[in-house]
Amino acid sequence: MLLAEMNWPAVAALPKTTPVVIPIAAIEQHGHHMPVFTDSLLLGEVIRRAHEQLKTKVLFTPLMWLGNSEHHIDFAGTMTAAPRVYLDLLSNLIDNMITHGFQRIVLVNGHGGNHVPGQQVVFELRQKHRQRNDLLLLNATYWLLGGKPYELDSALEQRRMGHACEWETSMMLRIRPDLVTDLNKTVNVDFGNPFEPGSRGWITKERTPTGHIGDPRKATAEKGETLFSVFTADVVTYIERMLAWDGKSWNG
Amino acid sequence: MLLAEMNWPAVAALPKTTPVVIPIAAIEQHGHHMPVFTDSLLLGEVIRRAHEQLKTKVLFTPLMWLGNSEHHIDFAGTMTAAPRVYLDLLSNLIDNMITHGFQRIVLVNGHGGNHVPGQQVVFELRQKHRQRNDLLLLNATYWLLGGKPYELDSALEQRRMGHACEWETSMMLRIRPDLVTDLNKTVNVDFGNPFEPGSRGWITKERTPTGHIGDPRKATAEKGETLFSVFTADVVTYIERMLAWDGKSWNG
Amino acid sequence: MLLAEMNWPAVAALPKTTPVVIPIAAIEQHGHHMPVFTDSLLLGEVIRRAHEQLKTKVLFTPLMWLGNSEHHIDFAGTMTAAPRVYLDLLSNLIDNMITHGFQRIVLVNGHGGNHVPGQQVVFELRQKHRQRNDLLLLNATYWLLGGKPYELDSALEQRRMGHACEWETSMMLRIRPDLVTDLNKTVNVDFGNPFEPGSRGWITKERTPTGHIGDPRKATAEKGETLFSVFTADVVTYIERMLAWDGKSWNG
Amino acid sequence: MLLAEMNWPAVAALPKTTPVVIPIAAIEQHGHHMPVFTDSLLLGEVIRRAHEQLKTKVLFTPLMWLGNSEHHIDFAGTMTAAPRVYLDLLSNLIDNMITHGFQRIVLVNGHGGNHVPGQQVVFELRQKHRQRNDLLLLNATYWLLGGKPYELDSALEQRRMGHACEWETSMMLRIRPDLVTDLNKTVNVDFGNPFEPGSRGWITKERTPTGHIGDPRKATAEKGETLFSVFTADVVTYIERMLAWDGKSWNG
Amino acid sequence: MLLAEMNWPAVAALPKTTPVVIPIAAIEQHGHHMPVFTDSLLLGEVIRRAHEQLKTKVLFTPLMWLGNSEHHIDFAGTMTAAPRVYLDLLSNLIDNMITHGFQRIVLVNGHGGNHVPGQQVVFELRQKHRQRNDLLLLNATYWLLGGKPYELDSALEQRRMGHACEWETSMMLRIRPDLVTDLNKTVNVDFGNPFEPGSRGWITKERTPTGHIGDPRKATAEKGETLFSVFTADVVTYIERMLAWDGKSWNG
Amino acid sequence: MLLAEMNWPAVAALPKTTPVVIPIAAIEQHGHHMPVFTDSLLLGEVIRRAHEQLKTKVLFTPLMWLGNSEHHIDFAGTMTAAPRVYLDLLSNLIDNMITHGFQRIVLVNGHGGNHVPGQQVVFELRQKHRQRNDLLLLNATYWLLGGKPYELDSALEQRRMGHACEWETSMMLRIRPDLVTDLNKTVNVDFGNPFEPGSRGWITKERTPTGHIGDPRKATAEKGETLFSVFTADVVTYIERMLAWDGKSWNG
Repeated sequence: MLLAEMNWPAVAALPKTTPVVIPIAAIEQHGHHMPVFTDSLLLGEVIRRAHEQLKTKVLFTPLMWLGNSEHHIDFAGTMTAAPRVYLDLLSNLIDNMITHGFQRIVLVNGHGGNHVPGQQVVFELRQKHRQRNDLLLLNATYWLLGGKPYELDSALEQRRMGHACEWETSMMLRIRPDLVTDLNKTVNVDFGNPFEPGSRGWITKERTPTGHIGDPRKATAEKGETLFSVFTADVVTYIERMLAWDGKSWNG
Repeated sequence: MLLAEMNWPAVAALPKTTPVVIPIAAIEQHGHHMPVFTDSLLLGEVIRRAHEQLKTKVLFTPLMWLGNSEHHIDFAGTMTAAPRVYLDLLSNLIDNMITHGFQRIVLVNGHGGNHVPGQQVVFELRQKHRQRNDLLLLNATYWLLGGKPYELDSALEQRRMGHACEWETSMMLRIRPDLVTDLNKTVNVDFGNPFEPGSRGWITKERTPTGHIGDPRKATAEKGETLFSVFTADVVTYIERMLAWDGKSWNG
Repeated sequence: MLLAEMNWPAVAALPKTTPVVIPIAAIEQHGHHMPVFTDSLLLGEVIRRAHEQLKTKVLFTPLMWLGNSEHHIDFAGTMTAAPRVYLDLLSNLIDNMITHGFQRIVLVNGHGGNHVPGQQVVFELRQKHRQRNDLLLLNATYWLLGGKPYELDSALEQRRMGHACEWETSMMLRIRPDLVTDLNKTVNVDFGNPFEPGSRGWITKERTPTGHIGDPRKATAEKGETLFSVFTADVVTYIERMLAWDGKSWNG
Repeated sequence: MLLAEMNWPAVAALPKTTPVVIPIAAIEQHGHHMPVFTDSLLLGEVIRRAHEQLKTKVLFTPLMWLGNSEHHIDFAGTMTAAPRVYLDLLSNLIDNMITHGFQRIVLVNGHGGNHVPGQQVVFELRQKHRQRNDLLLLNATYWLLGGKPYELDSALEQRRMGHACEWETSMMLRIRPDLVTDLNKTVNVDFGNPFEPGSRGWITKERTPTGHIGDPRKATAEKGETLFSVFTADVVTYIERMLAWDGKSWNG
Repeated sequence: MLLAEMNWPAVAALPKTTPVVIPIAAIEQHGHHMPVFTDSLLLGEVIRRAHEQLKTKVLFTPLMWLGNSEHHIDFAGTMTAAPRVYLDLLSNLIDNMITHGFQRIVLVNGHGGNHVPGQQVVFELRQKHRQRNDLLLLNATYWLLGGKPYELDSALEQRRMGHACEWETSMMLRIRPDLVTDLNKTVNVDFGNPFEPGSRGWITKERTPTGHIGDPRKATAEKGETLFSVFTADVVTYIERMLAWDGKSWNG
Repeated sequence: MLLAEMNWPAVAALPKTTPVVIPIAAIEQHGHHMPVFTDSLLLGEVIRRAHEQLKTKVLFTPLMWLGNSEHHIDFAGTMTAAPRVYLDLLSNLIDNMITHGFQRIVLVNGHGGNHVPGQQVVFELRQKHRQRNDLLLLNATYWLLGGKPYELDSALEQRRMGHACEWETSMMLRIRPDLVTDLNKTVNVDFGNPFEPGSRGWITKERTPTGHIGDPRKATAEKGETLFSVFTADVVTYIERMLAWDGKSWNG
């Protein structure tokens, strides 16, 4: 079900156990070769496919395209909520749905910079509503749900998500090839960073002059289809677990 | 130009005098007969038409569908930023574009509850950037730009914007009649309020049990076309004034 | 009734339906020819006259002389709350009175820069107290209540409020001519701004080097008396509508 | 000099070494026998007398009558800024004057509940402007400047400031006896508190059902004159020290 | 009792009337001759001694070593919470204990810069919990509880607390002489300040180039023992008053 | 080097490339069998051992024992900063060191609830100081640096960190067996949660009535030594990577 197309009595009539999916992405630079709306377009496609499979059982809000992208702000066209404003924004989105009585709410995230804020916010909100014992508040970044697309398609060289990389570019070639430009002019940019697995604060311009990380030249539409398939399956499975929850217990 | 479809070098190459349009609307109850995304759909259509006329001269960001709708939160499906978070959100959207060097930025608004916050924010940001002498920060609600659609179409009975009313319902009938339901079951709800022209804080449920204000039964697709024409013309004219600005003076 | 002169048992004994008037103005530059306290002096006179007519029926708090005047801060002597602090300040003033049980509260405003903040605050507070069904929270700027003084005195050339203009200077000449200086040295400053009726963020120094907007040389004490009469009548009428309210309904 | 009556060029022409006095008081319950504006009236008189002695050398802003009075909010008619809003408010008042270039600024305080906030704010602002070496930011509560009025008038029984007490009531009898009512019906309320000299958080209603602390029946207008004389002298002396400061050194 | 060494059932089993002591100090420059942890070491010793006398009757939390030290930040090694963050931090510490049901809570403070924030916070929290009538919230700086060590040891020249001064250096010589260096190279730095007893905002570097205030060369371990004895006795007595409180009345 | 024991000139003399380690932990319930200071004691031991190996090359601040523990607040004795206050607190700690010129700063974390806040804060601060190109801001939770202690000691049954579990209890048995009580009375509590690898907001009492997660009965001091060895080695190696950084590049 698409919230956008429903009127309020229809929403009010839904069972409160209906899972609510709030898709969150970004509008930020994606290199010389892809548009700033890439994250939102890609997550939009994942959500579109997931919706096809789940539609009568799950409520989907519109996709919030403004993300936590301050690390990209040196590149023109990037828009971002300030970090604390982004926490408030996500918090408001979930809290609206708690106000309407929904009990199972997930942020499905399509931008790396939103991942930690999403975790912070589900923590904060669970504390705020600590008297409730029926709340399931989740944050799930679509490429971090366990899928290993490179095991399905050996042509995939990359092993984890980059930025405007083989993976993202492949997915764009699959759905909006008209928005992918001059791919041959791009170069490989290493992921780098000798400080993993700790977390390191960074800004994009210290990592890459063009704005991308990874090797976009390796992208193909076929790889894109594989990626969409794997990630959609992961998202669908995750939401099905929400449906299967017993509604009250940690382990249910 | 649509920001969403541009890559960052293309945005960086734009003249800094390019007007930037940030459309803002809402997702909130619109009575029993219309979907919660009504404001966003209607503004989206106004912006789509304006873009057709202005496209190479003006930069359009995506439409921010989350608005200042706390007065509607008693009705299911409404989503809203908390009032101060909404001020921060609008402020961030404009400030992003100032960061990228743009000088002429307008919020084009399609939700009544956003009007005052938009005014507050252009005030605050102008103060924040008081050392600048080339900034034009504007807030414009599309039905408050002077257009008098009832002078063009005498069938229009309403004289100002309501909520899920003759006007909004007509526009929805024009673009998404599939989302308008059970129109005949609605009733007239007076605008009321003996405290104009002062401002009065209100919540929707004290005004209307169904959520709409005005008389939706008066709506027709033809009236909708008139309304879109008038409002689009107003928005286009307003942006053209931004294009015509001399770039530095109050009166220019 | 003047809150300042009452003791707490007397306030506690008032009917909770008593309208409470909170006058808000500013201390900010008013050109070369008038003192920074102009807005507070003028509103003080309007309130003094209104109080004479309403005294036993209405509770008046002291006038809050600190306003939202950051746009004037480039001119010496201006004092201002920061924009968000001003929202908090107004919010506290009204909320104090809600705490004491009062149900009908109005900000009577005498400074243009306070108008939008006053609207924002009555919105926010109505939401905060959404469980209440007996609250009437209003914001009313005295020259925006419908009065058309120029229809009474054809010598009045100005058609709306400026700043340290024909209107304000006339009113000062009526009550404190000793504080009006060198009127003949002033010049006309056009209202300007080709971006109405949209809202535009501005700072005073981009509009006027002297600090005034309008033509102070047109001021006379007689015009001032007309202005005070019209504006006082508007304020009194507005408060009488608060007295006549049925205490519960939107239209009452 | 009274800021309220000056125009901006006159303020701009003042030497930046001119001391600026910002009087701060409160509007809060003062027992059954005195009005809520007592603190503001009393400080107003101290300031009026100080101004008479200092007038051409010192700039006085209007008196901020809204104080930090949340501990009195259980008594009708009390108005208060929330504690953090009050910090912001004081901070803004001082910072306005720093913006205009003034270097020597003092809060002269007439309400006990403002004393700690005033200290907090001069600390905060000095840190904010830590690159400045010419700033003198002070907070001075008028009855805590060393004056011992009981040494001048042995009829004074109280040894320190209470609330609506012998001292405050005497001062009110001196300037506004018309606002003092039913003095004979009051009783003595001990200062109490076995936890001095540590600080203890308190609310008024746990200390006194009537709202006053001390013995108002001991008040006379003659004692009031003594108190005003002593406190005014203290304030004048304090400001004279500001005038005598060398403008740069801690000990100067 | 030391909270740090207790498990939660043991804490839950304590009478809610048990006084809770929250020691707060700082990490900030203490001149050329003493380490940045001086305030925390000294308060730690006072608390250690107090705990020995009170142990089964009082609950001691760990010492919060981060203080309000922004005035020292120009000197390397100083750490500080920003002023408002420090208010929040203290507020959280006390509020945690209120959450667990404790009714008598004292901040025992060992850093001058924490004194006003501690007062502000006990004020704020008492207001926040105004519906409670059994709360005793206190702030006590150990050297401001009335002790006059110079009356016990005539060799003590100083009459009040300085910074890295005769008093603090003596106490450090008593407990950690290994951390006191080059004492003979220090000089006397006058307390100065002609603006007492008003409060003045200051930063350390405007008072002293070395960072200390007072004359460290006068320090001896014997004086240190006297100081610890006096201050510990004051703290113990103060806490005993908390134990003796009747649990409900202002004067009890 | 221990910051606590250094004076400010010594800190000022350090090379700005010196890594700064800020240990952060918590004071929160650790089941019936361990004290609330467990996380702080364990991290303290890891840091003590790391300091022994690194001492002249690295600056260690004191351990911040107040953590982000609101999920445990239902259990007595838990103390916590509110979530946003904790972000501010961490932010201040790091920013102090940036103020003093240090370029390489790591939060070494010993409490699960601090992990996401630490990530959020290094993100925020890197953005705040985006003009700097020499900053290395890191967050490292000691048991998430890659160590697999169960590969060294096959007796270890647990595969990841729990709470007051086999691992934590073993480490406590190694350093403070006197504070471990009634171990035999504990039971196994499953980690549970069918919503991994997504993030789920939780409060402790919905997971475990006793407060622990895992099986404390499996703990031995020998296992504790293994765990300390592995985790200390990981922390030392991580800091050595900071020492080896080239001071400017992402990959250096």
